[in-house]
Amino acid sequence: MFYHDNKLQYPVRVDTPSPLFAKMLQQAIGGVEGEIRVCLQYLFQSFGARGPARYRDMLMDTGTEELGHIQMLATAVALNLEGSSAAVQEEAARANPMVAAILGGMEPRQYLSAGMAALAADANGVPFNGSHVYASGNIVADMYSNVAAEATGRALACRLFDMTDYPGMKDMLRYLIARDTMHQQQWLAVIEELGGHQANLPIPNSFDQSQELLDVSYDFFATGIDGTETPAGRWTSGPSLDGKGEYRVRRAVPFGDEPKLAPPSPSGYAQRQQMTADEADTSVTVMTTGDTQS
Amino acid sequence: MFYHDNKLQYPVRVDTPSPLFAKMLQQAIGGVEGEIRVCLQYLFQSFGARGPARYRDMLMDTGTEELGHIQMLATAVALNLEGSSAAVQEEAARANPMVAAILGGMEPRQYLSAGMAALAADANGVPFNGSHVYASGNIVADMYSNVAAEATGRALACRLFDMTDYPGMKDMLRYLIARDTMHQQQWLAVIEELGGHQANLPIPNSFDQSQELLDVSYDFFATGIDGTETPAGRWTSGPSLDGKGEYRVRRAVPFGDEPKLAPPSPSGYAQRQQMTADEADTSVTVMTTGDTQS
Amino acid sequence: MFYHDNKLQYPVRVDTPSPLFAKMLQQAIGGVEGEIRVCLQYLFQSFGARGPARYRDMLMDTGTEELGHIQMLATAVALNLEGSSAAVQEEAARANPMVAAILGGMEPRQYLSAGMAALAADANGVPFNGSHVYASGNIVADMYSNVAAEATGRALACRLFDMTDYPGMKDMLRYLIARDTMHQQQWLAVIEELGGHQANLPIPNSFDQSQELLDVSYDFFATGIDGTETPAGRWTSGPSLDGKGEYRVRRAVPFGDEPKLAPPSPSGYAQRQQMTADEADTSVTVMTTGDTQS
Amino acid sequence: MFYHDNKLQYPVRVDTPSPLFAKMLQQAIGGVEGEIRVCLQYLFQSFGARGPARYRDMLMDTGTEELGHIQMLATAVALNLEGSSAAVQEEAARANPMVAAILGGMEPRQYLSAGMAALAADANGVPFNGSHVYASGNIVADMYSNVAAEATGRALACRLFDMTDYPGMKDMLRYLIARDTMHQQQWLAVIEELGGHQANLPIPNSFDQSQELLDVSYDFFATGIDGTETPAGRWTSGPSLDGKGEYRVRRAVPFGDEPKLAPPSPSGYAQRQQMTADEADTSVTVMTTGDTQS
Amino acid sequence: MFYHDNKLQYPVRVDTPSPLFAKMLQQAIGGVEGEIRVCLQYLFQSFGARGPARYRDMLMDTGTEELGHIQMLATAVALNLEGSSAAVQEEAARANPMVAAILGGMEPRQYLSAGMAALAADANGVPFNGSHVYASGNIVADMYSNVAAEATGRALACRLFDMTDYPGMKDMLRYLIARDTMHQQQWLAVIEELGGHQANLPIPNSFDQSQELLDVSYDFFATGIDGTETPAGRWTSGPSLDGKGEYRVRRAVPFGDEPKLAPPSPSGYAQRQQMTADEADTSVTVMTTGDTQS
Amino acid sequence: MFYHDNKLQYPVRVDTPSPLFAKMLQQAIGGVEGEIRVCLQYLFQSFGARGPARYRDMLMDTGTEELGHIQMLATAVALNLEGSSAAVQEEAARANPMVAAILGGMEPRQYLSAGMAALAADANGVPFNGSHVYASGNIVADMYSNVAAEATGRALACRLFDMTDYPGMKDMLRYLIARDTMHQQQWLAVIEELGGHQANLPIPNSFDQSQELLDVSYDFFATGIDGTETPAGRWTSGPSLDGKGEYRVRRAVPFGDEPKLAPPSPSGYAQRQQMTADEADTSVTVMTTGDTQS
Repeated sequence: MFYHDNKLQYPVRVDTPSPLFAKMLQQAIGGVEGEIRVCLQYLFQSFGARGPARYRDMLMDTGTEELGHIQMLATAVALNLEGSSAAVQEEAARANPMVAAILGGMEPRQYLSAGMAALAADANGVPFNGSHVYASGNIVADMYSNVAAEATGRALACRLFDMTDYPGMKDMLRYLIARDTMHQQQWLAVIEELGGHQANLPIPNSFDQSQELLDVSYDFFATGIDGTETPAGRWTSGPSLDGKGEYRVRRAVPFGDEPKLAPPSPSGYAQRQQMTADEADTSVTVMTTGDTQS
Repeated sequence: MFYHDNKLQYPVRVDTPSPLFAKMLQQAIGGVEGEIRVCLQYLFQSFGARGPARYRDMLMDTGTEELGHIQMLATAVALNLEGSSAAVQEEAARANPMVAAILGGMEPRQYLSAGMAALAADANGVPFNGSHVYASGNIVADMYSNVAAEATGRALACRLFDMTDYPGMKDMLRYLIARDTMHQQQWLAVIEELGGHQANLPIPNSFDQSQELLDVSYDFFATGIDGTETPAGRWTSGPSLDGKGEYRVRRAVPFGDEPKLAPPSPSGYAQRQQMTADEADTSVTVMTTGDTQS
Repeated sequence: MFYHDNKLQYPVRVDTPSPLFAKMLQQAIGGVEGEIRVCLQYLFQSFGARGPARYRDMLMDTGTEELGHIQMLATAVALNLEGSSAAVQEEAARANPMVAAILGGMEPRQYLSAGMAALAADANGVPFNGSHVYASGNIVADMYSNVAAEATGRALACRLFDMTDYPGMKDMLRYLIARDTMHQQQWLAVIEELGGHQANLPIPNSFDQSQELLDVSYDFFATGIDGTETPAGRWTSGPSLDGKGEYRVRRAVPFGDEPKLAPPSPSGYAQRQQMTADEADTSVTVMTTGDTQS
Repeated sequence: MFYHDNKLQYPVRVDTPSPLFAKMLQQAIGGVEGEIRVCLQYLFQSFGARGPARYRDMLMDTGTEELGHIQMLATAVALNLEGSSAAVQEEAARANPMVAAILGGMEPRQYLSAGMAALAADANGVPFNGSHVYASGNIVADMYSNVAAEATGRALACRLFDMTDYPGMKDMLRYLIARDTMHQQQWLAVIEELGGHQANLPIPNSFDQSQELLDVSYDFFATGIDGTETPAGRWTSGPSLDGKGEYRVRRAVPFGDEPKLAPPSPSGYAQRQQMTADEADTSVTVMTTGDTQS
Repeated sequence: MFYHDNKLQYPVRVDTPSPLFAKMLQQAIGGVEGEIRVCLQYLFQSFGARGPARYRDMLMDTGTEELGHIQMLATAVALNLEGSSAAVQEEAARANPMVAAILGGMEPRQYLSAGMAALAADANGVPFNGSHVYASGNIVADMYSNVAAEATGRALACRLFDMTDYPGMKDMLRYLIARDTMHQQQWLAVIEELGGHQANLPIPNSFDQSQELLDVSYDFFATGIDGTETPAGRWTSGPSLDGKGEYRVRRAVPFGDEPKLAPPSPSGYAQRQQMTADEADTSVTVMTTGDTQS
Repeated sequence: MFYHDNKLQYPVRVDTPSPLFAKMLQQAIGGVEGEIRVCLQYLFQSFGARGPARYRDMLMDTGTEELGHIQMLATAVALNLEGSSAAVQEEAARANPMVAAILGGMEPRQYLSAGMAALAADANGVPFNGSHVYASGNIVADMYSNVAAEATGRALACRLFDMTDYPGMKDMLRYLIARDTMHQQQWLAVIEELGGHQANLPIPNSFDQSQELLDVSYDFFATGIDGTETPAGRWTSGPSLDGKGEYRVRRAVPFGDEPKLAPPSPSGYAQRQQMTADEADTSVTVMTTGDTQS
């Protein structure tokens, strides 16, 4: 279960309120790369963890930490919306500083719905969506989902860092960026501890690989039509990362035939014309389009 | 631009229609781990690719391949819904095989909305949501997002493999599982080619790391209260994966103070009672809960 | 503004409660083809109608009628959930008829969230989504959106009709199906009144067509690669429906070149490796995949 | 900031796994009445609290408690999905207990996406949606939102209690039901402390009420057409709850006229026919429908 | 069933079009506090009402009234988007007034999708979501949901009132604000009529309260760790609002133990490493973080 | 299956980057009228096509073409976000051109989430939603859905055309507008080929029309209360478009009675007060509201 104190994990200082930046910070709260997502993702992975308890406990530690990050960012939003600043007033066309802020590009629901506070939504006001809480039951799949979340999350934090000149906001972000540095490597360290590529690929490694169609397991399929070149890379030749195959490149061709569905069943209520035998199709001659631009 | 032929990438054979399996296959079409997601994800990464063209072209190849996988799975759904099978008829309580199928647990919208065909939705009928199309502009963040997608996607395909006894469906899945094997390692091979952990961590590696609060960049924060043990692991000591720090474990404590927001502005329409000075708060004595279960 | 009386537009009689059918009826309430959608769609088209007032008024009439259909269907759901029926009790494994109903395949939220009543959601419990309220400001575009809604809506009602044997439910549906018959033709009658294809195509007809690239305005583009036949049809030759062109078939070929994006900007926080000059790409030789299935 | 230990707030004991009940429990995790919602709602209200700090702190206490309820329920889901039970095996048509469970009506994504664990979604698999996190900046509005959440949440918990016979699940629920009892009254106690109806209504009480159209502030509008009776109630006569008015009942009639929008602007790309002067509308004679049912 | 006339419930007059205000008004149409929500909420509560018919009829009256409010607001949006105003033209950089409006901060889809009219969406363009239609089957839970909707709705209307200087818009809003005043007290009057707190708490009052764990039914749980004070309040001591208990404060402690899930089943396709016995976990010594800020 | 080359279907040339236009173009990518929708819609219709193969093949051709349109538009977005332009720099308040662009009204997630590239979302950042992929299994319903998509899509493209002065963007749009011209008529041509209104209405034409309540199949219901005129139109008299009926206008009146639901079941956990017999309702006298505006 969970506990709290009344302090922030790291100081949140707003030198000059910026309603526009308050909008941008929402992406770090409720966006797909944001803190609600990683908080719930790590906690759900922990709640459903099977196997060694150490990973469950580690996920709980970091999931709990992330809840404090939501708090920091929500506090930063609220402070950035406080209307007393001279800077905001200067750009105001009218007496009401809230209205001026909205005219200046702020997220309208931070005022209209929240009375100048943070929302559980992203920078466009799109509500947080729980389908981004990845917890697959496979620890390596989950660790890669976590790395992806922290990699896009750190990119987001760096971009936010670039958008503000205020030292208080920069200071908060350099803390959050540093934590993302750790978290990326924390999840990758689990994979290393579990044996790295050779021990873990393909994921899940508990599926009997002899059941898959090994003939295409290490092939790069080139879907470009004739004349479209395919660049060479680590994935086009040489041993596969799992040590179990050899990469090669093959032109993508159909192994299958044309799909044939049955005529519609009466209960499906297609049009009657769909239920009759196919008329003799006549194919047409196709012109090649040339240089037709006027 | 894109082209097609009229064949399937791999044969799709349904021995005995199973409306229940048609529902499950929806997860591989429109679920968060599904083929619409990876198809659009790789294509959007390709469309927005900056930097070396070889990654853009490779993403295009595989994104185009995935579109063919949607086609295979949608064909499998349609064939699993065809009502002619004896097995389906046997379990039918009434004359209409579609109705019988629905009574047997099928996804109702495959009949009600699609007339016995696939939807752009997951196994619960939740529509595909474009926010899962991760394309961050950072190639390593994207590659990890792709590995996460293929890792959860292969786990899904293995679970589907386990749910059917029919050879046709198993054969289709062993093809798709094999392709996921390749795709996982294809994305990881890009990271290896770009220099692996040391060259790429932390992501993005183009942010000047001296700007982050390095004091906490390699620390595992233990948020467990006193008496809660923290297990040792690769992430608690030793050199960090990026070779730039040393892991350590610290108890999570607040660096910040209690957050202080300003009183509500009149334009925010809080209650009047929120706008007055805080009454002298009196704190209470807290009882410790004991063994109260009856 | 709006008024009501306390009666139903048409009798709703449930002979034998069927929790499963209550679930299916949800599609007609909150599904994409359902009554909340058409009710709001026609009313929003009316509220925003510009031009002749007669269309605005007609839309108001029918939008108001549809609200009564939501009421009928919600009443039907509530009655189908009433637990007194012998049929439900027979299939119950336990004393509680609600639980038995849930075990029998009902929509769980009709019980858990609504206490045995209808939801503003579809047959899978996916909430009604306002983005399906099409009101484009162009009357012919709107009429076609309305026809599409009533065509899929009548297909849905016919499929529901097929799923029940109870005369009360069939009677309600034959009323709703008849209304859909009218509504489809009502919207098409507006288009006929406005001059049909020749006067209205292409939509919007207020765009100066000389500004579009007329060279491709009546061409069917065949994207099949060589060897993929293209069937002839009304759309491959002969005069176009708007009388302004002649259909023809052309092979889809690129008019454009390879897209070239600039290197990533530093503020975008791509990986450093994306920012350097493209290494000399080496293309590979592509094998043609043969008959590799085991 | 936040802390944890490794124990559950209350014991979670699953006597006999029930995949069907695991599905139902999802509503209490990720449904609109569920624990993710109240957890985030109370925390966001706390993070954005302006005015007396005591309410902020109280909200933090209870928001933190709710996070532990998510953990309890997620644990209950995972335990209910464990495949070892005889009961589950008996109803299985095949050797694989997971598959048998799915055939028995379980939420498919608990297996397909989560490998037998909880999701951040409701009982239909609809993902948690952050727009349900109500935090308005007005404390009384928020308290009523919280009462509404706990009232629907306790109704949900009671319904879940009715759906299971297993003592372990019943015991967990009688704990959660008791907590909802407290939380309902906790939020109402805040309103009482702030002065109750007379001091707080209408909400927000900081809007200058003389600016609203007081003529209709205490009127019940009867929208029923002639012949539709309007029942008497506490809201139809007598002093209003805020002590500032007197209830009365009035027939709803339009104060306004027909709305008149301008003709469409050329840039709106309506049809040309919408831009011309309205033709002389001719109204029709309307037949009164009689007893037309066959 | 439902009827209409062609007039507005209250006059909607736009003195000077403001595309920015048209965007803000969307929140009152399709936002979580908006009129589509309350309209459908009251109507669905009415359609599913069980018990005394008088509440069903009252809900129908007010739900029908709310539909007229959607009409008023949609009309206000359309009028605010009309491009003829001098004010809009002045701020325009180019000849096209619609484009100028968009450049000035308007909701782009009001032009792009609706041709200058209202959408069934909120101020950020997020579509109306039917999950906000609360109709629980419990009348007191529903009344509190309705109060919450009207309290946040009136706060929204007051904020909108503050954002405009135009007398026409202010006049419309003072009507809507007045109606919200009534509706808040109308729902609370139902609760009073039903007996108030003592007769109705806890909600639902039909659950046998002896079945809940009464030991924690009136306890405020303090989750703050040692040193975090808990403020006293109406909810920390004294008789509970329902008259059935006595409030007290207890420190939140776990009643339960560490949760223990079974090892992953083979069908779950976890990693093999998760299926083996837990290695001997070694816990680490945790450093206490000090004042580390540079 | 699918193939690609590395070129664009039509040239995409950005003369001067416009981050604002990049935001608007999102509507054509991920909006309800956008290219992801039509691409998936035509492909899903093709994948599930039953009946004559020629329609399946035609849908495949055009669905594949639309994928190339997504590519064109995504390329246009990326180019419009490139920060090197003088125009963007001029409006920048600070050194960082990306930040300046965001301040100028751009979609923030194109920077924050995508690093200056396109998203699978609409102009407000609302993610693409798969429920807009209409594929009903009835070919005429589908063709009308396609016409509706192309009609709203062409209106969108015309509006975008109006919003830009740059020749490159206008040229791309005049290509896309021309393709929409063709596609509208292509789908209508299918309906003509299948026999037009008389052969196809009502949709589905495979439902035995004698089962519907023919008495109301060609009636326009006037829901306006007394005194509200109903305009005459093609749909109020004369032969119906399907040639099977005669239009007429009838006043909408209830055929049904007041709905009567059973009292709540104990398991539903309504309030106890809802379960008792209805008290004798007393109806009130309703005042008629007069001219009450101050």
